[in-house]
Amino acid sequence: MRPEPRLIEVRRNVLKQNDVVARALRDRFHRARVFVVSLVSSPGSGKTAFLEKVLTVLGAGHCVAALVGDLATENDARRLARSQAPVKQITTGTLCHLEAAMVQTALEGWDLSRLDFLFIENVGNLVCPSSYDLGEDLRLVLMSVTEGEDKPLKYPTIFNSADAAIITKLDLASAVEFSWETAYRNIQAVRPGMQIFRLSAKTGDGMKECLDFLQIRQTEMRQPATP
Amino acid sequence: MRPEPRLIEVRRNVLKQNDVVARALRDRFHRARVFVVSLVSSPGSGKTAFLEKVLTVLGAGHCVAALVGDLATENDARRLARSQAPVKQITTGTLCHLEAAMVQTALEGWDLSRLDFLFIENVGNLVCPSSYDLGEDLRLVLMSVTEGEDKPLKYPTIFNSADAAIITKLDLASAVEFSWETAYRNIQAVRPGMQIFRLSAKTGDGMKECLDFLQIRQTEMRQPATP
Repeated sequence: MRPEPRLIEVRRNVLKQNDVVARALRDRFHRARVFVVSLVSSPGSGKTAFLEKVLTVLGAGHCVAALVGDLATENDARRLARSQAPVKQITTGTLCHLEAAMVQTALEGWDLSRLDFLFIENVGNLVCPSSYDLGEDLRLVLMSVTEGEDKPLKYPTIFNSADAAIITKLDLASAVEFSWETAYRNIQAVRPGMQIFRLSAKTGDGMKECLDFLQIRQTEMRQPATP
Repeated sequence: MRPEPRLIEVRRNVLKQNDVVARALRDRFHRARVFVVSLVSSPGSGKTAFLEKVLTVLGAGHCVAALVGDLATENDARRLARSQAPVKQITTGTLCHLEAAMVQTALEGWDLSRLDFLFIENVGNLVCPSSYDLGEDLRLVLMSVTEGEDKPLKYPTIFNSADAAIITKLDLASAVEFSWETAYRNIQAVRPGMQIFRLSAKTGDGMKECLDFLQIRQTEMRQPATP
């Protein structure tokens, strides 16, 4: 059955090549002391709505910027640019995920040392982005209450590759009879100890906790390593 | 930039190989006079909820069966088996889509000539399944109102590869201020003339129209070709 050995071999090479570029990116981000956060989720889970709020609030006191990946359209970049933060769209065509080389190309001409935070919004896809390191410091996986509590069990790889989870569209939880207990149990079954946030980008509920978390992590990253 | 020529070449070979298997499957389905419908959508758009209703209602007067694709778990097969229809889970591991060879393997030992309808639920992914023909007669793309009206523009390939669209979670449309007009316009922009259904699997609204459509298409398929 598929995939046959030759395709596996080629995929391994692509991943290896991606890892080399991702490592170079990570070094560059660390030298520039910019904290890099990537966002992964299904299509329509609310990555852009979350990022709109994050850029606006964090942008008031920090230098923030974003890259947004989509197969087609510049819609998300236009939406996010309203926050006044520098935003660049990466259009992938038919490719279902971002790769480190695309991030590298998109950053050409940017002075990263002027930034405190860089956000990278991946293509909406709960499978393929999990395999591609983008050099980020933190990977956030979002899932909306409307998708159902079973998604961590059905898409374990992406939950495993992420550092924290945000359950979005909190305002719709009652309407869809969302069980927080089941969702938490499913996330913990796949990734024990994973930190989980609840958020409604629409009402603002849970936004402060997410922002505090990002700022604490950014501050920790900027501190010199203890001897 | 990626993907580099060698990967493109290997992908083309995989697709070509898939097309050969899909063609053989389609011939087999036609000989058995079974009408085959595949379902594609984002994770959590309601493919399984729709299919649960379809199998129960159609199953009362027809012989129906289903194959369901997921990276992990047998949850969907268990859910659908409650309809009493024969159901088989295809677990893809890390693969983000179904391929024709997986369908072929899953059908081993099945007497297709006893079936009127076979449903194939793809892995939840709005990108990759679009490239893989499964030998189906009809491909339905589902999108839920909670994902937002812009999805057809951002994932045009999958809307282009489908024969009809179902907008699901109709019961949540007001809560998310869903604009039907914008959604219809976006679908038509990508795939002019595409038939669109509105559905709430929860309340049953729109279910009759979807079922009528499937039965009409199945009847048309079974009719001998006009000379």
